Amino acid sequence: MITRNETKAVRVGTLAIGGGAPVVIQSMTTTKTTDVAATLQQIRELAAAGCELVRVAVPDGAAAAALPDIVAASPLPVVADIHFDYRLALAALDAGVAKLRINPGNIGGRERLAKVVEKAAQKEVPLRIGVNAGSLEKQLLERYGVSPQALVESAVSHIRLVERLHYNKLVISLKASSVPLTVAAHRLLAETVPYPQHLGITEAGPVFSGTIHSAVGIGALLLDGLGDTLRVSLTADPVEEIRVAREILTAAGVRRFGPRIISCPTCGRCRIDLQQLTGEIAAKLAGIGEPLTLAVMGCAVNGPGEAREADLGVAGGKGEGLIFRRGKVVKKVPQEKLVAEFVRMAEELAGSRKAGQD
Amino acid sequence: MITRNETKAVRVGTLAIGGGAPVVIQSMTTTKTTDVAATLQQIRELAAAGCELVRVAVPDGAAAAALPDIVAASPLPVVADIHFDYRLALAALDAGVAKLRINPGNIGGRERLAKVVEKAAQKEVPLRIGVNAGSLEKQLLERYGVSPQALVESAVSHIRLVERLHYNKLVISLKASSVPLTVAAHRLLAETVPYPQHLGITEAGPVFSGTIHSAVGIGALLLDGLGDTLRVSLTADPVEEIRVAREILTAAGVRRFGPRIISCPTCGRCRIDLQQLTGEIAAKLAGIGEPLTLAVMGCAVNGPGEAREADLGVAGGKGEGLIFRRGKVVKKVPQEKLVAEFVRMAEELAGSRKAGQD
Repeated sequence: MITRNETKAVRVGTLAIGGGAPVVIQSMTTTKTTDVAATLQQIRELAAAGCELVRVAVPDGAAAAALPDIVAASPLPVVADIHFDYRLALAALDAGVAKLRINPGNIGGRERLAKVVEKAAQKEVPLRIGVNAGSLEKQLLERYGVSPQALVESAVSHIRLVERLHYNKLVISLKASSVPLTVAAHRLLAETVPYPQHLGITEAGPVFSGTIHSAVGIGALLLDGLGDTLRVSLTADPVEEIRVAREILTAAGVRRFGPRIISCPTCGRCRIDLQQLTGEIAAKLAGIGEPLTLAVMGCAVNGPGEAREADLGVAGGKGEGLIFRRGKVVKKVPQEKLVAEFVRMAEELAGSRKAGQD
Repeated sequence: MITRNETKAVRVGTLAIGGGAPVVIQSMTTTKTTDVAATLQQIRELAAAGCELVRVAVPDGAAAAALPDIVAASPLPVVADIHFDYRLALAALDAGVAKLRINPGNIGGRERLAKVVEKAAQKEVPLRIGVNAGSLEKQLLERYGVSPQALVESAVSHIRLVERLHYNKLVISLKASSVPLTVAAHRLLAETVPYPQHLGITEAGPVFSGTIHSAVGIGALLLDGLGDTLRVSLTADPVEEIRVAREILTAAGVRRFGPRIISCPTCGRCRIDLQQLTGEIAAKLAGIGEPLTLAVMGCAVNGPGEAREADLGVAGGKGEGLIFRRGKVVKKVPQEKLVAEFVRMAEELAGSRKAGQD
């Protein structure tokens, strides 16, 4: 149903960003970059959770000096996050980072920018140009206020600076903590330049509100076919950012990671403890990697029909449950054997699908 | 930034749905409707959490017989959820419900539908016509498959049935567990009929995935200016549905409920324990009803500028923090007094805003 926006692809280490490649999930370490062991440990945890690209802050020379060791041992391509000091950007490129996040407007003028772009071009390392609603140029603020136009014009002026230096391996981000502003700005950006888009809601906040703000903003853009890489920003363990990112991608129908469980909200018609049943089944199937759609429904009257899109489903009844496949009941099972039998059938289905037999 | 879609307003008890009224938050009880005390207790909990309209299942005559007592004592307008049996719809209307959720296609034919519509018209009770991707008519499925077109045509055919009976106090919902399908269907519906829209993702699943699926789907539609009432469906305590609904409305910039805390994801530049600080501040300000925007930022370099849209903010430093207002630093406070001073200033600001002085 979703047609992905066409963008110019760039290579980031072993990954592609843009050009129709799967939307890349990234995060950022929260360790001191100078603490190489702790940083690598966090990168490994992120990778295990499904992170595909990791950014590290490079606030000073000591952090830059830690980069070669981090890059060498990291299981993921590393992005260096640079502000103000072009020498840190040069050091990061020498350290072998796969991508550089800079703001061309605050790197110290055109000559210094040219040095960074020249070295990035030599190494074919893409630049992410990050514009933030909180640090827009004064003249743009005066002309447009904090608006989609101001964010896009700021990005375009930075893009032109780099293009004039004959480089165009770029990824663009426009960040604001206002979700409607971020969404409108990225839509306008897509009409303006063909570069891959990095999606995120900045300062999204603590887990509960940050998750929802990110889902609304990033999700709306993904549903539009926009976005080539994304980061969910939460004031939390970054591993949580990956869980949320995966679920947003799944909800938007853009990527799939393992089984998806659909379940009805319980209502007065419900004949079983649906919350417990859903939890039990979800826990037992956590190891399956195949993208099955599984339904856990409260009543036999509506369950099988309402969940006919499910590969496999279970509907509760009095003392027994129905197991159904694509809307058709295939088995009646006593209550006490329901979870075990459903899990067995789901694993069997995952197995045959993995083998290409379903 | 968002222009709300123009819809025909209907009255639901003391509420308006549509016509530019605030988007109404609703939920559904999970108690047995025949257990009046438990149902009323849950309705009171929902109301306390911010629910504005509550639906109860009416699966049989015993549930219908409980409705007068529920309606009489409920702090919220009550919607009756009816399937198949038109006599239950008539009984619910006699019991004084404020709205009826029916599927005109499964209520037993035109004559029986006419009796329901006639009584609803007498009592000026709106009907919610709920179409579900799981129960589409065979001929629509054959013609369009499970698609936005099939959902909208199904809704339109039901709408025409009721309109031909000279009634048009209607609210329309199109539900599917696929987020892209739900979003595309509601967009098409808005181009087709002027009735208020009820938003929701059906079978959204357990709390984590249900929250994110709902935020992506409902959020995208709210950002389009669509939606006049919404329900977040979670396989969980319905009070959780209200928390999520409020946060989605806040993220989409459609409604505000109390303070919003923006905070940066921590990074290597962070000089304080941001997660703890954010949690402490959020807990201490939970009682404030004014829609303040508060920022909790990790570093003094970027914090005040990046969060210049915040009414009040705090940025961490070494052993002390900066408090800023709309991007300008107003105070330097030692670490140990930071939370107390920030909370004091936020409460003061909320107080003067409430009094209309800010």
